[in-house]
Amino acid sequence: MGVLLLSHPQPPEPIVQRINALDPDLEIATDLEEADPERIECVVAYRLMPGVLSRFPKLRLLCAASSGVEKLLAAPDLPPELPVVRVTDPLQAAQIGQYVCGHAIGHVRQFASYVEQQRNAQWLRHAPAPYGSAFATVLGLGHTGATIARMLGSVGFQVRGWSRSGRPVEGVEVLPGRSALAAALAQTDVLVCTLPTTAQTGNLIDAELLAQLPAKSMLINVGRGEVIDDAALAQALEAGRLAAAVLDVHRQEPLPSDAPQWRTRGLQVMPHVASQPSSEAVARTVVEAMRRLRHGEPHPNLVERALGY
Amino acid sequence: MGVLLLSHPQPPEPIVQRINALDPDLEIATDLEEADPERIECVVAYRLMPGVLSRFPKLRLLCAASSGVEKLLAAPDLPPELPVVRVTDPLQAAQIGQYVCGHAIGHVRQFASYVEQQRNAQWLRHAPAPYGSAFATVLGLGHTGATIARMLGSVGFQVRGWSRSGRPVEGVEVLPGRSALAAALAQTDVLVCTLPTTAQTGNLIDAELLAQLPAKSMLINVGRGEVIDDAALAQALEAGRLAAAVLDVHRQEPLPSDAPQWRTRGLQVMPHVASQPSSEAVARTVVEAMRRLRHGEPHPNLVERALGY
Repeated sequence: MGVLLLSHPQPPEPIVQRINALDPDLEIATDLEEADPERIECVVAYRLMPGVLSRFPKLRLLCAASSGVEKLLAAPDLPPELPVVRVTDPLQAAQIGQYVCGHAIGHVRQFASYVEQQRNAQWLRHAPAPYGSAFATVLGLGHTGATIARMLGSVGFQVRGWSRSGRPVEGVEVLPGRSALAAALAQTDVLVCTLPTTAQTGNLIDAELLAQLPAKSMLINVGRGEVIDDAALAQALEAGRLAAAVLDVHRQEPLPSDAPQWRTRGLQVMPHVASQPSSEAVARTVVEAMRRLRHGEPHPNLVERALGY
Repeated sequence: MGVLLLSHPQPPEPIVQRINALDPDLEIATDLEEADPERIECVVAYRLMPGVLSRFPKLRLLCAASSGVEKLLAAPDLPPELPVVRVTDPLQAAQIGQYVCGHAIGHVRQFASYVEQQRNAQWLRHAPAPYGSAFATVLGLGHTGATIARMLGSVGFQVRGWSRSGRPVEGVEVLPGRSALAAALAQTDVLVCTLPTTAQTGNLIDAELLAQLPAKSMLINVGRGEVIDDAALAQALEAGRLAAAVLDVHRQEPLPSDAPQWRTRGLQVMPHVASQPSSEAVARTVVEAMRRLRHGEPHPNLVERALGY
């Protein structure tokens, strides 16, 4: 019973060490060419080249080494009934929350203006809005969205969250439906997108939605690049109908050096660094998934393929 | 019984409106030349020109419209026994905390590197340190320092606080004494100074203290400019022995356009915008102080002149 760990571009060693510490009996291969096709029951990967999965006839489990799984689900040779689990790292959501808070505070406190003013040795005070008067709206209220929402609240934002289901989330004011979302958008300083790529979310942030935001507002995308209509976003930024955007995720990664995003006014390109699952979390997920597989127990982080997350 | 409100550079109207709403009988003047010297019992001011206080023989109270009072205490014509109270705005401490969190997160998550990389369309990921692994040290644990410390904790910093007294503060790990401070400094990512100007704090952040910080660390000063040895700070930054500094307060404000701070490597000049007491808070403090004066009750925000805060 073996595990093939394809951690590229992350180094595999820290994850292997943690897995060995948690379950010394688990066989782990980290080289595709050297893995024994007859022994591999679990593949752990961030991304997959076509033809990898079909090498392993004994495969019983695919483990996504990150929380976004759409690239793995799109693998043409993914067996239809193969269970897919994904890593959930409680600290990863907090790490994204910290990152979002940094960008959100920098925006409402106008840090970029002061960097700009310093070039001209210009002492010009922009009176801060009263504490607690800025609004943040979080799209998507899974574990990550809810964590971000609560953390934004702890640094003085009035936070509303929106999800497809409208399910209540502890400590977050949930907007009931699209019309409530429209009203909230009109009063938003920072819009945070945590949405995964699904059939429903593609281009959800389009010209119409962006037009509902005040011109002073910032968009932060830590979900997936496909959720944003890139052309509509560029137009809103260039026309000054939106003040700023921070994109951590992109349709194509790495973003090509000739992509227009690098040079769009008010757009900050971030190279997908909001978070990274820790080696510890990947190792724990793999070991626990294998244990449950052995004992025929259901896995709590099983991906619902129809939903896409 | 009248109040003279010298709110310059803030506009007086919002404060006057709030005072009128809280105590319609209180007489308020906002123009020094038009104030009746025989009726003014309280002066409210951010700063004072020499000769102002001596105009008012009936003066019974001076109210500092901000939390820093050293400029008012330095007035040559300040009567020795005149009670001085200062505004405390609970939301002002949180406003400073938010501002500090924004700078601290931007530092440990390397936001400036990504702004720089964008100029060259450079996709280069700096793996974030595990969540919760960055250390912040807060100098000064008054209401402001304690609030900042707790808020830094809520966005994932391991926070230690240091104060002259070493008194315990709820929710904050307090460093006992100078040697414990030295050990903490060696393990600090962000050093936050909230210290007021007193006989003990002048140039407290000097070459020796700065040398105890790791080269990757950032200094944030939201206390008073006099606490920092400016030349030592510039040397540490220019030599790369300190990565960054954000100075919200300065020995001279506005900072003159030929001051070297504007052009020091890694130094961000901020024009004293971490917070501003709300009109509501100034009004409440004035009305409450006058009520206590009428009834002979002690004021909780009375400044201890010998300590300087």
